[in-house]
Amino acid sequence: MQEADNPWSVIGSREVYENQWISLTEYDVINPAGGKGIYGKVHFRNVAVAVLAVDEQDRVCLVGQYRFTLDRYSWEIPEGGCPIGTDPLEAAKRELKEETGLVASEWTRLQEMHLSNSVSDELGIIYLAKGLAQHEAQPEETEQIVVRHVPLREAYRMVTENIITDSLSVAGIQQLWIRKLEKETAI
Amino acid sequence: MQEADNPWSVIGSREVYENQWISLTEYDVINPAGGKGIYGKVHFRNVAVAVLAVDEQDRVCLVGQYRFTLDRYSWEIPEGGCPIGTDPLEAAKRELKEETGLVASEWTRLQEMHLSNSVSDELGIIYLAKGLAQHEAQPEETEQIVVRHVPLREAYRMVTENIITDSLSVAGIQQLWIRKLEKETAI
Repeated sequence: MQEADNPWSVIGSREVYENQWISLTEYDVINPAGGKGIYGKVHFRNVAVAVLAVDEQDRVCLVGQYRFTLDRYSWEIPEGGCPIGTDPLEAAKRELKEETGLVASEWTRLQEMHLSNSVSDELGIIYLAKGLAQHEAQPEETEQIVVRHVPLREAYRMVTENIITDSLSVAGIQQLWIRKLEKETAI
Repeated sequence: MQEADNPWSVIGSREVYENQWISLTEYDVINPAGGKGIYGKVHFRNVAVAVLAVDEQDRVCLVGQYRFTLDRYSWEIPEGGCPIGTDPLEAAKRELKEETGLVASEWTRLQEMHLSNSVSDELGIIYLAKGLAQHEAQPEETEQIVVRHVPLREAYRMVTENIITDSLSVAGIQQLWIRKLEKETAI
């Protein structure tokens, strides 16, 4: 499909915040219609990696944790940050092992998403991990994580009932459910 | 499933930035393991509403626009902001009409997601819109939008090939594809 050149112009900018994970820059812009305005953009230093770890009984590994940003508990697939420029697959393996103790022998890159593109440049990558072996988990100190293995059908129900609301988890579980349905319709 | 109380404590905070759409606050926290640290949280003033508008030939309405945050062109379902506390369905109707000129007679709330919960509290709501009638589009001056109607199968292919990467668009199109497959498997 036909795509246009960048219709935005930047005429100034100032970095207003940074920490270990993000920086926020305010840009003075001229918008596509020629009007002056500002745009606050959050840059992420990490790519978000997420892992759908599925065992031989078609159970999906979920981790439960309290999300500071939402001030509520959240059930998700294991996720973590991968510093931009380093290998996201290695980060996915590390996060899965740390949070759940699982080590997988088969890895497939399922999907990429921009999570919140009105404000940030955050990229998420979802992996499918199979051939699981259980080792010891080593969660980071900021994480107080509960691990559950739930049937894919149950995980998908949690998505449709808005019990699982994390965007990477929703997209990953739906993608796996599609693969299951497509196998069935192909029969 | 069993859910824990909030294991984070806040011992201080400062608002470091705000504009019309977001505010950023840095919190001094004690993390779940008892360690001191900071947490930069982006609060969204709007709920993101997204609309899967599907016509009688099972074609999905996509809008193309240049995303300032990503510095690239992006194909998405129509989306916009709904000020928190106002009706998201009304905002969805407004955004669909403004961006595409479409007015729908049947609306279904499909899904809710937290788009980027490691850093923000942004909530997205996806609607399915059917019974479409074409009126005149009135895009905002910041928007330079191209509208296309593509078969659902093609939209889903664009998701799997990472041509569509916007999280709300990915999840919404997957959800619609699942509904189609589930209808077929039920036959």
